[in-house]
Amino acid sequence: MKIGLLGYGVVGVGVCEWVAQCPDMHVEKVFCRRPKAGIESITVYDAQEIINDPTIDTVVEVMGGLHPAYELVSAALKKGKNVITANKNLISAYYSDLIALAYENGAALRCTAACGGGIPWLVNLERCKRLDTVCEISGIMNGTTNFIMDAMHRSPVDFSEILKQAQELGYAEADPRADIDGDDIRRKLVISANVAFDTLLREEDVPMFGIRTVSAADIEAFRQHGFVCKLIASALRSGEKVSAYLEPTLVGSGDLEAAVPSNYNLITYTGEAIGPQSFFGQGAGRYPTAYNVVQDCLDVLRGQRDFYAAAAAPAEMDPTAVMHPYYVRTEKEDGWLSGHIADRWDCGVVTDAVSVSEMLTWAKQHRAVDPTCFIAGIR
Amino acid sequence: MKIGLLGYGVVGVGVCEWVAQCPDMHVEKVFCRRPKAGIESITVYDAQEIINDPTIDTVVEVMGGLHPAYELVSAALKKGKNVITANKNLISAYYSDLIALAYENGAALRCTAACGGGIPWLVNLERCKRLDTVCEISGIMNGTTNFIMDAMHRSPVDFSEILKQAQELGYAEADPRADIDGDDIRRKLVISANVAFDTLLREEDVPMFGIRTVSAADIEAFRQHGFVCKLIASALRSGEKVSAYLEPTLVGSGDLEAAVPSNYNLITYTGEAIGPQSFFGQGAGRYPTAYNVVQDCLDVLRGQRDFYAAAAAPAEMDPTAVMHPYYVRTEKEDGWLSGHIADRWDCGVVTDAVSVSEMLTWAKQHRAVDPTCFIAGIR
Repeated sequence: MKIGLLGYGVVGVGVCEWVAQCPDMHVEKVFCRRPKAGIESITVYDAQEIINDPTIDTVVEVMGGLHPAYELVSAALKKGKNVITANKNLISAYYSDLIALAYENGAALRCTAACGGGIPWLVNLERCKRLDTVCEISGIMNGTTNFIMDAMHRSPVDFSEILKQAQELGYAEADPRADIDGDDIRRKLVISANVAFDTLLREEDVPMFGIRTVSAADIEAFRQHGFVCKLIASALRSGEKVSAYLEPTLVGSGDLEAAVPSNYNLITYTGEAIGPQSFFGQGAGRYPTAYNVVQDCLDVLRGQRDFYAAAAAPAEMDPTAVMHPYYVRTEKEDGWLSGHIADRWDCGVVTDAVSVSEMLTWAKQHRAVDPTCFIAGIR
Repeated sequence: MKIGLLGYGVVGVGVCEWVAQCPDMHVEKVFCRRPKAGIESITVYDAQEIINDPTIDTVVEVMGGLHPAYELVSAALKKGKNVITANKNLISAYYSDLIALAYENGAALRCTAACGGGIPWLVNLERCKRLDTVCEISGIMNGTTNFIMDAMHRSPVDFSEILKQAQELGYAEADPRADIDGDDIRRKLVISANVAFDTLLREEDVPMFGIRTVSAADIEAFRQHGFVCKLIASALRSGEKVSAYLEPTLVGSGDLEAAVPSNYNLITYTGEAIGPQSFFGQGAGRYPTAYNVVQDCLDVLRGQRDFYAAAAAPAEMDPTAVMHPYYVRTEKEDGWLSGHIADRWDCGVVTDAVSVSEMLTWAKQHRAVDPTCFIAGIR
């Protein structure tokens, strides 16, 4: 396998190191914008030198972002080159375009590292689908936010303080918004749900609520009631309809998700016959992400040609399918909320069972009134 | 794929149901000892009718036991037929014989269902090894004993009472010894360690201690000290040496294993670079076991020819590599034990760090003196 590498950042360096251990593959050219030490002889500053090189059969895209990643990946597929990418933004946004291009051109398109980092999530989801029907997926799909929630449960510190610590450890970006507000997870959820259900969810169809307003007092209230709070993404199918959302979720302190430490991830699918199967490991980072990129290369080398899902039809979203109680903390009175209060905890209230879409719509609007409000679904 | 099925018990029925959903495979003949409803037209009472049928390319062995399973599987491999089996006894006992036969005859040999039931454990272990070096495996590999330990933690009942309940629910065999004393797990551990480390462990090399003497009072003491007791199998490699054992293990109440409910399994490998990756799901039962059998058939259909490990060399066991403290409860005084006491809990003592092999050798001998004694490693 002769590889053209697009991008030589954190993941790209890891890809080169893993590939160096594989006798059947070789990085021929690396596209980057600035000279990088150690790869001078194979660096190109014009990505077309990779796209137009007929000796390169596989393009590995680890540059991130939508553009020019989309244009370059599309061009590579049109040339019949296999594409392996870790770019969740790209696959989430251009899912149907890219899998259609891959099929038309007989090229492989794989993106295992885009969901779950080093966890073999998408490949096992694909394997399950060969025999069983997946009815639900859910889990902890982001290491940054799990690190923060885990740390807040271990000692009662404020969100801003623990975020700073996560940034110092390299577990959170300088601009943490994509992680803590949910965009990163939403992309992984959209890709996972599309593979699981052969659908075409769009990011904007998936309501979400992040963790930036959670407080030490909230966590203490959850603990007193036997709960642990995790940021959990879920999608489920009932008949032809799909529900997908992500929100802080109170799970029982003895539940599997509650035991996920530090920056680890745990993702679960439920097959109609096989029941739940969960996958735990490092969901991000140089070596885990590069590991699944190179595993994808090995799968392609061994004849794996398809995308994870052959079909993809637009999904009818069912915003009322899932209902459960919520914990809500807000300083501002609200008529809708008052009508749903079933219990009171220290600093917040617990609602009766409310549809997820109704609550997440309300919470988004209510944030304009009370930017400090926090909600969490109760499982 | 034209399948000859050896055995039509619980798993065999499940295999037929899953195969019926796959367009590319068909069960041609079923070997069983007595007539079974619904398969009269394809039943044979002489297994040689399958072995000698040149139109059958794949033998699925789900009869269990060592003989005649070994003779039939060997004969099938010698004829160049692929063999898929769920039989952990067979693979554990005849590991090197069978993989050698498979390679010599260019036949596939797969046994994913033999370790972890429906969990994609061996296939993911194999995938990890393509890139990384596995340094440790461990986990909960038996649903019967996890059901019992989980139930005893949920309410303080006696072992014998909960065993009876497990038998009524079909989670424990009428003769539960292979589960509760560890033989079943030991076979899975031997197979997993052999795949993980390219070694040739033998069952008799692996010391073990089961759960039949655990009491409600033990569990209460563990709970008071923040521990949960699980029956955990472990194997690790340091250099050329391998350590493997299984014993009741006290894990922190917030650890992943502590959260494994009912009859579920959770198995973990640790790669030198990728770190720990864990796999959770149903580890036994008709549909989970049959699911992985038929997944193996699909892998063979798609060109997967190899066994999980190409190499297998005898392992040098290192009985001193792992040391940790133990909880020990015994009614009989013992000189060796007295010299290792570091702490006292309600009904037992806690030792200083003792090598696993030393403790498991002592415990086996001490059972002759005090059949009610119980030990648990403290992680």
